[in-house]
Amino acid sequence: MLPKSLQDAIDALGTLPGVGPRTAERYAYYLFRSDEKITKSLIDGLSGLHSGVKFCPVTFALIDSSENLSPLYADPNRDKTTILVVEEPLDIFALEQTKSYKGTYHVLGGAISPIDGITPDQLHIKELLERIKKDQVKEVIIATNPSVEGESTALLLQKMIGELSLPDLKVTRLARGLPLGVDLSYADQITLSAALENRTDL
Amino acid sequence: MLPKSLQDAIDALGTLPGVGPRTAERYAYYLFRSDEKITKSLIDGLSGLHSGVKFCPVTFALIDSSENLSPLYADPNRDKTTILVVEEPLDIFALEQTKSYKGTYHVLGGAISPIDGITPDQLHIKELLERIKKDQVKEVIIATNPSVEGESTALLLQKMIGELSLPDLKVTRLARGLPLGVDLSYADQITLSAALENRTDL
Repeated sequence: MLPKSLQDAIDALGTLPGVGPRTAERYAYYLFRSDEKITKSLIDGLSGLHSGVKFCPVTFALIDSSENLSPLYADPNRDKTTILVVEEPLDIFALEQTKSYKGTYHVLGGAISPIDGITPDQLHIKELLERIKKDQVKEVIIATNPSVEGESTALLLQKMIGELSLPDLKVTRLARGLPLGVDLSYADQITLSAALENRTDL
Repeated sequence: MLPKSLQDAIDALGTLPGVGPRTAERYAYYLFRSDEKITKSLIDGLSGLHSGVKFCPVTFALIDSSENLSPLYADPNRDKTTILVVEEPLDIFALEQTKSYKGTYHVLGGAISPIDGITPDQLHIKELLERIKKDQVKEVIIATNPSVEGESTALLLQKMIGELSLPDLKVTRLARGLPLGVDLSYADQITLSAALENRTDL
C-alpha cells in the first residue's frame, strides 16, 4: 500500500522503544517532508554510536571509545572514597546536572528483576565490592530507583557490603520525601510517611 | 559530559517531531544497548526515504519513485468519478484499511491555516478542480480533519467546486457522530448535536 522506501523507514523507526506504527509513520513522513539534510544528519548521528561509545571498565559509565577510563573517575578532583551507585549510565548525567556531588559513580547495569531474568550476578556488584576495598571507600550512596526492583537491589547491596566487615564504611541512600512542586494531597502514602519521618529542622 | 558519539546520536534523534531530550536519550541508549544490527537497519531504513518516495503528480499521494502515477489511481477497478479529498497522504492509508471505498483520492497537502502561513494557493486545489473536469467526476467526498483549519478548507472547497457550475456533481463530507467505544457522557456538544441531527433509522 505505502511506497516501499517509506514502509522501510516506518518499520525501521518502529524498532525504537515505545514507538508504535502511528508514531513511526509520523516520524517517517516528517523526515520525508523535511529537507533531506535532516535525514542525513540523523543517519550520521547514529552511525558512530556503536563504534564511538563503550563502558568504562571500572565505573561502567559510558565513555568515548578513545578513553581508557571514565574522565570523571580519572579526575583527581573527584573524591574516589565516595561511590554513588546507580542502575543505569544516564542516571549519572541527571545527578551531575545538580552539580552538588563531588564523589565518583558506579553503574550496576540494571536492577534485580526475576521477571526479566536479571539476577544479581548480571549486575556489576562484584566490581563494586572490589572498588570499595581497592579505593578504601568511606561512603557508598545507593541511588537505585524507588521501584520494587530498585529497593530489592538496594537491600542486597546493603547486605553484601555489610559482609565485607569494614567498620569505617558508611552505606547511605538518597532521601525520600516530597518532590518539588507536588501538591501534598497528591503524594502517595509511602512518600508522605517518609517525608514525615525524615522531617528536617527549619 | 556524555561521550561525543552518544551526544551526537541524542541530538540527531531529538530532531524527530515531538521527541524531547529525555526521549532522545532513551532512544539512543536503547540503540547502544541493543545489537548493532538494529542501528544498522534503522540507518538502512532511512537512507532510501528521500530517493525512493515521491508525490503522485495527479493525486499527490506518496508513491515509489519508479512509478509515474499512484497505483491506486492507475487501477482500472477504482472509480475515477469519485474523489475523496484528504489533507495528508497518510490519511489515504487509514481510509484504505477500512476496505469500504472504491473511488480515488486527492491529497491537498495540508489545510488552510493563516497562523502557519498556509494559504489556499499552497494546497493542491487547482489540480483538484482540473481533475473534476477532466475525469467527469460525479462525487467529491471532503474528508478534511474536523478542526478549525479542516472546516475552513472544506467550506472553501465547497465554494470553489460550486463555482464550476457542474449540475451533476455532488459534494459530500464524512458523517459526524459518535465514534465507536466512546461513552455518551464524554462526547463533546458539537459531536452529540451532529449525532442527534444525523440519526439513522434502526
